[in-house]
Amino acid sequence: MTTLISVPLGEHAYRIAIGANIRRQLPALLAEYTPLTPKAPALIVSNPRIWRHYGTEVHEALTQAGWQVTPCLLPAGERYKTLRTVEKIYDAALRQRLERGSTLFALGGGVIGDMTGFAAATWLRGIAVVQMPTSLLAMVDAAIGGKTGVNHPQGKNLIGAFHQPRLVVIDPDVLVTLPPREFRAGMAEVIKYGVIWDAQLFDLLSQLPRLDRMAALPAEQLLQILERSCQAKVDVVSKDEREAGLRAILNYGHTIGHALESMGNYRLLNHGEAVAIGMIAAGELAVTLGYWSAEAAAAQRALILKAKLPTTIPAHFDVEGLLALLQHDKKVQAQKVRFILPTAIGHGEIFDQVPTELIRETLHRLQA
Amino acid sequence: MTTLISVPLGEHAYRIAIGANIRRQLPALLAEYTPLTPKAPALIVSNPRIWRHYGTEVHEALTQAGWQVTPCLLPAGERYKTLRTVEKIYDAALRQRLERGSTLFALGGGVIGDMTGFAAATWLRGIAVVQMPTSLLAMVDAAIGGKTGVNHPQGKNLIGAFHQPRLVVIDPDVLVTLPPREFRAGMAEVIKYGVIWDAQLFDLLSQLPRLDRMAALPAEQLLQILERSCQAKVDVVSKDEREAGLRAILNYGHTIGHALESMGNYRLLNHGEAVAIGMIAAGELAVTLGYWSAEAAAAQRALILKAKLPTTIPAHFDVEGLLALLQHDKKVQAQKVRFILPTAIGHGEIFDQVPTELIRETLHRLQA
Ligand SMILES: NC(=O)c1ccc[n+]([C@@H]2O[C@H](COP(=O)([O-])OP(=O)(O)OC[C@H]3O[C@@H](n4cnc5c(N)ncnc54)[C@H](O)[C@@H]3O)[C@@H](O)[C@H]2O)c1
Ligand SMILES: NC(=O)c1ccc[n+]([C@@H]2O[C@H](COP(=O)([O-])OP(=O)(O)OC[C@H]3O[C@@H](n4cnc5c(N)ncnc54)[C@H](O)[C@@H]3O)[C@@H](O)[C@H]2O)c1
Ligand SMILES: [Zn+2]
Ligand SMILES: [Zn+2]
Repeated sequence: MTTLISVPLGEHAYRIAIGANIRRQLPALLAEYTPLTPKAPALIVSNPRIWRHYGTEVHEALTQAGWQVTPCLLPAGERYKTLRTVEKIYDAALRQRLERGSTLFALGGGVIGDMTGFAAATWLRGIAVVQMPTSLLAMVDAAIGGKTGVNHPQGKNLIGAFHQPRLVVIDPDVLVTLPPREFRAGMAEVIKYGVIWDAQLFDLLSQLPRLDRMAALPAEQLLQILERSCQAKVDVVSKDEREAGLRAILNYGHTIGHALESMGNYRLLNHGEAVAIGMIAAGELAVTLGYWSAEAAAAQRALILKAKLPTTIPAHFDVEGLLALLQHDKKVQAQKVRFILPTAIGHGEIFDQVPTELIRETLHRLQA
Repeated sequence: MTTLISVPLGEHAYRIAIGANIRRQLPALLAEYTPLTPKAPALIVSNPRIWRHYGTEVHEALTQAGWQVTPCLLPAGERYKTLRTVEKIYDAALRQRLERGSTLFALGGGVIGDMTGFAAATWLRGIAVVQMPTSLLAMVDAAIGGKTGVNHPQGKNLIGAFHQPRLVVIDPDVLVTLPPREFRAGMAEVIKYGVIWDAQLFDLLSQLPRLDRMAALPAEQLLQILERSCQAKVDVVSKDEREAGLRAILNYGHTIGHALESMGNYRLLNHGEAVAIGMIAAGELAVTLGYWSAEAAAAQRALILKAKLPTTIPAHFDVEGLLALLQHDKKVQAQKVRFILPTAIGHGEIFDQVPTELIRETLHRLQA
């Protein structure tokens, strides 16, 4: 059974298809839900590990349906999310003579999705991209919303473009090979949606005994988690396609999260782990300021613990350094730091006036 | 006196301001016609030669109006229109801590305009760009319409994005320092608008004794030429922002033109020279096919001659090679070559069915 979520973005509208083993139905989904046709040459962009698991079957399904599609494998890892690597997609696009009617298929996590999306945004000034996210994070976050991009040597995601996919195909079964630490990282974003947007998702998560591994989740509940998370992201981005206002609430846990990631050089803490701590911090700030109840914050902490995500700041991190990093976050507007705080389970709001002193105290208190 | 042309593109709407010595009024124009403010840091992107002539005065005008603006000078020339050079803009953007509310000012010809536009399209997923074209070609063509981009080592303009400027400022007085060959190249595009879109512009050009140098044109007529040309491009692109259909008529003279440019390695013939020959060829095809009168074609030829632009294909060019290049043009759709042909002075149409044999004959006949 396939669940369809419509992303209502006018001429950029598209669908998200979610369902067990759905990856093999890709050609039928393309035919039914997109204007894309096998006429023009196409590329599947992936990395060698993901290709080994899922590349051949996707490739064969497309080929059998008449698509003239060539693999383009890129090195794995965030450190390769650069313009240099995108140039390899451009080179393949040139070799395979892609045309304006051509399609790039992104088969991978957020790194592959972001680079493929950026290449699609900029090759011949924009060709079609279909996202086939294979990590939990990419399924519930990176593949949806049209943000694409690469890193600058001195900052993450500084180079990019908005470019909506024509279709997103989410097959939970591929999560079986996802490394557990990556699964947990994606779960941090799921919890985020529960806290700031969808109280029912929060309840669903609260009822499950474990959130740390795919194998620990019943298939039906995993599908529901994916559906509700995607719907949450869709709700927000379709109200704010280009990040003018509302979309900022998706940065819940991310302001401090980004500082933590950066201080740990993106190795000590991965994105989801940093966001988990960031949510704990934002929750505490919200409680101290009287916007949120201590019970709600405790319920959030319980989910984070069930996902085996961290709740404290590593002891050797310098709090003043973190505060300095907050000032340089890309989300800074006119030198003011912006915070997203929860005001109820399932509801977050944007606050601009959180006193630095309070942030400092909270960070100190959260140190292990 | 300032002439204003409105580009009606909904939320991407902007204005083109045209007037003698208008470059010094940039801050007032920004204040009056854009939402841009001096609050966020900005860059002026240019090349050393153009900077030497006009950089300081633009820079000073902005600084006096409170703009915190830093020059970013790039090497001059088409061969530097690459991702590598755009990275220099990114580096400057990072050094100057540009924010989402920041602006890039492009002060230069189409090369500077295209790269600055692309950097603006992709830095922080899109910041503002103001185009201050200094070549005739950039004034009447490159700066208008939102196409931005760079070259791939194996093909021109393959990498790019659509990104509309917030304002275009056209000061004819800067053309005084433009090399004459560049002036003539721009005049080819002006003639193009006369032939396929604006019969009154065609008449205006027909009445002038010379079209080959700025000094040969009365100031008032030059202004009219700029205004009508810009209006022609605006008319077309505002009906077709993303190049779905109508916009293709702007490629009049360009299908064969691109093949000629490429065969001459972009040195023997510059863009305008190649387009001039391309227009002669397309005109002949249109006459042979009975779509256009011989008189009209002769009138077109007269303009091209007055602009001291070439009308014949260099003798050593291989016609079969040109035909092969036509097949690889980016404008190929499903392997069919598309031709724009005039059907009256001031009117062009898209034709897909021009027999290759006829093109071959025409190209042979045009060889010197
Ligand atoms: N565009 C957006 O809106 C958006 C949102 C959030 C994050 N992102 C970006 O996404 C990236 C992070 O995404 P990610 O967490 O998916 O990282 P990732 O793409 O690096 O994937 C994590 C690791 O898991 C592997 N992997 C992925 N799926 C697998 C599978 N099914 N089986 C086995 N291995 C698999 C990958 O090869 C990689 O080693 C970051 O670059 C981030 O900036 C973008
Ligand atoms: N974006 C578009 O829609 C579009 C349309 C047409 C052309 N283009 C692009 O524009 C580029 C060609 O533009 P161009 O013809 O302006 O070339 P250019 O930018 O290279 O300028 C031509 C030469 O004139 C010099 N120059 C420019 N203005 C001057 C001035 N006022 N005084 C002295 N020297 C001056 C430049 O330094 C350069 O050496 C190509 O890369 C082409 O692809 C883009
Ligand atoms: Zn995140
Ligand atoms: Zn041209």
